[in-house]
Amino acid sequence: MSPDIKPNFAKGWNGLLPAIAQDAESGQVLMLAWMNLEAWEATVQGGRAVYWSRSRNKLWQKGEQSGHYQQVREIFLDCDSDTILLKVHQQGKAACHTGHVSCFYRKWHNGRLIEAEQPVFNPESVYC
Amino acid sequence: MSPDIKPNFAKGWNGLLPAIAQDAESGQVLMLAWMNLEAWEATVQGGRAVYWSRSRNKLWQKGEQSGHYQQVREIFLDCDSDTILLKVHQQGKAACHTGHVSCFYRKWHNGRLIEAEQPVFNPESVYC
Repeated sequence: MSPDIKPNFAKGWNGLLPAIAQDAESGQVLMLAWMNLEAWEATVQGGRAVYWSRSRNKLWQKGEQSGHYQQVREIFLDCDSDTILLKVHQQGKAACHTGHVSCFYRKWHNGRLIEAEQPVFNPESVYC
Repeated sequence: MSPDIKPNFAKGWNGLLPAIAQDAESGQVLMLAWMNLEAWEATVQGGRAVYWSRSRNKLWQKGEQSGHYQQVREIFLDCDSDTILLKVHQQGKAACHTGHVSCFYRKWHNGRLIEAEQPVFNPESVYC
């Protein structure tokens, strides 16, 4: 892979760039996670979204615990090559470990946060 | 505003969290920029998207130069309160300084980047 056609990981803090996962069918923004070069290459080569877990400090294939893998349909880079957009098919219908389709299930409304969507699975039955 | 219902800016590098702007009508992901507490408060209070420019190291109301403001329709927080999602009405039709509707106009395809959409304005006529 030519160095000029991949994300510019040198621009990220600790080599990490934000990667947005968007549902390829519905257009819903599902989550944001982080990629380094290693995660990018694993994603491109394997066809499933692989991120870098900042809390566990290791590569993290989304769904490795839950089975809710993200099949990558398309990959976009932004104009200055420091943000990645993945259009994915979300297996198991939900991306969030809380059981919600999207991690962005809380809406800011008049100074409060309200739950804008209901969970579609019980996290205790998936993450045990 | 209660401290527990705003983004957790302490989790960001230098107090900055990623903020995704999504077109409220089309669902297209337009751009990703960065917010600190000051940018968040300006956005919430003013109703237009305000980010923190890392290159200029100052608050940046999107559109202040181009006139392409982003009217905020809805604001979502992710499950761990460290990413912001804005659903916006994009004035001037395009968010990207290159004249493209979305900053994510380049698609990764078989190891190459291809331009997946055409610009809708000439940047030289907007940014002068």
